[in-house]
Amino acid sequence: MNRSLTGNGNRETLKILTEIADIKISEIPSGTQCYDWTVPPEWNVSEAWIKDSSGNTILDFSLNNLHLLGYSESYSGNLNLEDLKKHLYTLPDQPEVIPYLTSYYKKRWGFCLSHNQLLSLKDDTYEVRIDSELNPEGSMTIGESILKGDTDEEILLSTYICHPSMANNELSGPLVTSFIYNKLKEKKYRRYTYRILYLPETIGSIYYLSEYGEHLRNKLAAGFVVTCIGDHGNFTYKQSRRGNSLADRASELILKQTEKNYTVEKFFPTGSDERQYCSPGFDLPVGSLMRTRYGMYKEYHTSADNKEFISFKSMEDSVLKYLEILNVIENNFTYINKMPNCEPQLGKRGLYPTIGSQKDTAEFVNSMMWILNLSDGANDLIDISNRSGISFSTLANAAAGLMNNGILEIKSLSRE
Amino acid sequence: MNRSLTGNGNRETLKILTEIADIKISEIPSGTQCYDWTVPPEWNVSEAWIKDSSGNTILDFSLNNLHLLGYSESYSGNLNLEDLKKHLYTLPDQPEVIPYLTSYYKKRWGFCLSHNQLLSLKDDTYEVRIDSELNPEGSMTIGESILKGDTDEEILLSTYICHPSMANNELSGPLVTSFIYNKLKEKKYRRYTYRILYLPETIGSIYYLSEYGEHLRNKLAAGFVVTCIGDHGNFTYKQSRRGNSLADRASELILKQTEKNYTVEKFFPTGSDERQYCSPGFDLPVGSLMRTRYGMYKEYHTSADNKEFISFKSMEDSVLKYLEILNVIENNFTYINKMPNCEPQLGKRGLYPTIGSQKDTAEFVNSMMWILNLSDGANDLIDISNRSGISFSTLANAAAGLMNNGILEIKSLSRE
Amino acid sequence: MNRSLTGNGNRETLKILTEIADIKISEIPSGTQCYDWTVPPEWNVSEAWIKDSSGNTILDFSLNNLHLLGYSESYSGNLNLEDLKKHLYTLPDQPEVIPYLTSYYKKRWGFCLSHNQLLSLKDDTYEVRIDSELNPEGSMTIGESILKGDTDEEILLSTYICHPSMANNELSGPLVTSFIYNKLKEKKYRRYTYRILYLPETIGSIYYLSEYGEHLRNKLAAGFVVTCIGDHGNFTYKQSRRGNSLADRASELILKQTEKNYTVEKFFPTGSDERQYCSPGFDLPVGSLMRTRYGMYKEYHTSADNKEFISFKSMEDSVLKYLEILNVIENNFTYINKMPNCEPQLGKRGLYPTIGSQKDTAEFVNSMMWILNLSDGANDLIDISNRSGISFSTLANAAAGLMNNGILEIKSLSRE
Repeated sequence: MNRSLTGNGNRETLKILTEIADIKISEIPSGTQCYDWTVPPEWNVSEAWIKDSSGNTILDFSLNNLHLLGYSESYSGNLNLEDLKKHLYTLPDQPEVIPYLTSYYKKRWGFCLSHNQLLSLKDDTYEVRIDSELNPEGSMTIGESILKGDTDEEILLSTYICHPSMANNELSGPLVTSFIYNKLKEKKYRRYTYRILYLPETIGSIYYLSEYGEHLRNKLAAGFVVTCIGDHGNFTYKQSRRGNSLADRASELILKQTEKNYTVEKFFPTGSDERQYCSPGFDLPVGSLMRTRYGMYKEYHTSADNKEFISFKSMEDSVLKYLEILNVIENNFTYINKMPNCEPQLGKRGLYPTIGSQKDTAEFVNSMMWILNLSDGANDLIDISNRSGISFSTLANAAAGLMNNGILEIKSLSRE
Repeated sequence: MNRSLTGNGNRETLKILTEIADIKISEIPSGTQCYDWTVPPEWNVSEAWIKDSSGNTILDFSLNNLHLLGYSESYSGNLNLEDLKKHLYTLPDQPEVIPYLTSYYKKRWGFCLSHNQLLSLKDDTYEVRIDSELNPEGSMTIGESILKGDTDEEILLSTYICHPSMANNELSGPLVTSFIYNKLKEKKYRRYTYRILYLPETIGSIYYLSEYGEHLRNKLAAGFVVTCIGDHGNFTYKQSRRGNSLADRASELILKQTEKNYTVEKFFPTGSDERQYCSPGFDLPVGSLMRTRYGMYKEYHTSADNKEFISFKSMEDSVLKYLEILNVIENNFTYINKMPNCEPQLGKRGLYPTIGSQKDTAEFVNSMMWILNLSDGANDLIDISNRSGISFSTLANAAAGLMNNGILEIKSLSRE
Repeated sequence: MNRSLTGNGNRETLKILTEIADIKISEIPSGTQCYDWTVPPEWNVSEAWIKDSSGNTILDFSLNNLHLLGYSESYSGNLNLEDLKKHLYTLPDQPEVIPYLTSYYKKRWGFCLSHNQLLSLKDDTYEVRIDSELNPEGSMTIGESILKGDTDEEILLSTYICHPSMANNELSGPLVTSFIYNKLKEKKYRRYTYRILYLPETIGSIYYLSEYGEHLRNKLAAGFVVTCIGDHGNFTYKQSRRGNSLADRASELILKQTEKNYTVEKFFPTGSDERQYCSPGFDLPVGSLMRTRYGMYKEYHTSADNKEFISFKSMEDSVLKYLEILNVIENNFTYINKMPNCEPQLGKRGLYPTIGSQKDTAEFVNSMMWILNLSDGANDLIDISNRSGISFSTLANAAAGLMNNGILEIKSLSRE
């Protein structure tokens, strides 16, 4: 599937994803202004190939769409090797793989190939043909799913659909995202409303922010860019720009409490669409849970980032990890202890073992004690879990017991 | 002595302590409401034993009061081994010791014994007799000493008297506390007023806070729960909930400057009466200097926490360590340098060696320089000691010299 | 040259320095009051020596001016060895060196010599002669250079000229300072005005602050005490009292990014003139970049701190290091990203490579991305350099490119 910023490949990709998840597909006309950017013309390719003078096909886009420089314009002609080379792109350091390259904003044409193949090309006259269209009347295709929750506070999942044939650095993102969507849809109760986006990278999120940025500024509680999430590496969490947003705190808590080896990276302004969500004018609470981060594996942005590099088992585990994190966010509250002077007598409410001073008593009441002591309005359950070392789910259960007994109340439902 | 929350054992204990220290004893009637709690009926035991069918005494409360489950109700009857076992409590992991257990708030009866003894019991019919009284017209006994100081700002020492026969986790507390009292009483000048409490754990401090909590909120500068302070372990300081209260800062400074091995623990909401003093409604500046902390030694809450586990030498050292800490609190001031522009000329005041540039000069004037430089109203002597690494007492002497020369003044006498 | 707080030695020293740099020399009359201090009488020495009974010269000030205790009063007489010894000062621990000692504020006389020489002195009658003048009508000599900059915000360099014959702990300071002056003078543009002071230590800076302290409080952006800067040791940076002043942040950034081994020391209130600049009433942003800090080398304040201990190569490197730090201060701005919503499209401004997705693209645009993302008014370029790990000069170039394109503006020119 030849995906790019725009074109039929993206349209087809989203159509296939609708078989997994409910996705509303929209077309944004080429030429639409969004902040400093313009939605580019729609790019579609009919054919693109190079043949030698004997008529042998050297490269053919229909066999591997990475061969064509993204957004190549049409060209037809015969060139000697020297002139052809000006339009050929390789990775000399990784001579066996085809690089993935694009030229979105300057008109040119070119082909990508393995460096070994380049070295094997003989002095000859080559026939080059690219039949592509850059249609200013076309459109950019984006996908969106909304799952309504109990409140209009939102959680964002954003993934991208513009890298043709990349597996970890693309395919894994839309797949994992649509699996998460399905799991969230099954839930009987959702505190938050979920906004799930399938966008061409950069221009897609910039367009989206130009339309919905103000809404997200007001409503977004946490968000994640879902990418590089299908390989077999340990988890990597890239913080939001704030570094202590709800997305960051929930992700880091779960990774700390459930994973042995993982990496937390401070925000940096290169990467994927978090660059836009975390631009200083928005500074949204959007991080990114990945496995092996873009740029950290040599297969990145080459033909070697293929289906062998990822697995369904890894993607399944990634879905579960995302759901654990979302579960923390859904159940995180700042409680107020309504009986703050000394401890409430838990025993008479059936919350305390009736034989005092048993050695295991401490363990049993530990969770309630931590919640009661720290529920002064300054700590939410994530704080209490971090400070006590008790797992979030254990604390959430204890909090439920105290809520049922009227000892706790929720401070407020607004974004912590 | 059969101590518990209430009863004649406590009364006797306090009476004996009055031989060491002046203690005002008060009786709080059973049934008194204090926040969510009620002072329990007074518990006194006449006799409690188990005999086998041959009339041999198996267990006798009069030989070891741990044998009776605390707050057991009366019972008289004959039971086979199977039924008896439902009322027997042991510690299988430590088969040689008798656990210490209570059932304050649910009426039941039971005996505690070593697991080895339980295993040795034969199939037989056992005669059980417990003659105890739970008197709703009784009272809870508490002890209190007040040492007036120059100001009405207070320092609290609180210890508990409800664990029958426990040595480190009890006896050491009232003993060390009453020795500290005597040393404080000898002092000619006390800046602070000292409030020293001998209470049954939990219900005692809850009662006390219900009566004096508001006063302590306004007046308490620092406080300590004195417990587990007689064994041979290194010192452990458990911070107040605030983590940077005057009690915490003074204790940590002294431990850092005088002890090689010690532990500082962040506040946690289980433990002793600091649970009540540091409940979120009060959040008093109360920490606890211990040796081996409750729960950290296997003898805790068993018959093995006996007099062999503690020593008078250890308790004496503990008294001295508490006095060192209290000395820091007494002498800690935030000073204002009245000559803040450049250094005052110490030489003409006799505070500087007259031969300049000698290599040891730096050492000699170091203390004064640190005090002068940091006395801008934002640092007290504890801060200056921490930052300079100079011992608190050396700094306090240097500050006295600068005060005498009119270069320093005290910022204010209120709680730092 | 016999330098001291006052006297012809200082006058001569400054005169020689004027051959390197433009220095305005001022005379401050003895007796001038400055805060708690008074400018001392002017001290000049005609001759000072000890001879034995055979007329052999034992010590002669004209051969080594360290032999005379600084500010010795006149004396003429014959003494036996025992009485003479009361006026002799040595360093028993370093028996081969002559200590440097002074008695500025108490009238006495004395000689300094190596401990070995002291031990070699025989029982004899010694003739002592000191012909010195302490002239209350004299003056203290100070030097000052001002280099006007584009703004009246100032940078201070302060060095001292009162230690006779000390090389690292003195001579290196005025030399390096005057070399820095020359380099700064050559610059076509200076954002800051530079105030460069050559003062007798302590009394000089106290006098200067009594006159210009209020001005410096309002105008000083950063300052440095230049001393101990000529030896071969690694760099040591002593922070200003604030610990995060512009002087501190710029120095630590450059040391981190250019030096493998270096030391950063928190402020302490002993040392050189930073004691006065950082007294609590002023708390000026003045640190000190040294090599081996005073007190940290055994040659300090002895005759062994001589020309062999320092080198021109070291001083040259020190000048360059100071210039690197000053360059950071000159070019440090807090920028505002004028296009804060999403990224600006760098490509259409020629700031982005036109072939997207190349592996080296990330490196190329990294600097601009960091600047754009963090230029929300809360971070200056030093912050961005620290956070990104990108060198300050690379960032400054990238910022210039963004400024030229109108994407950035400077938040304000006032002191960050």
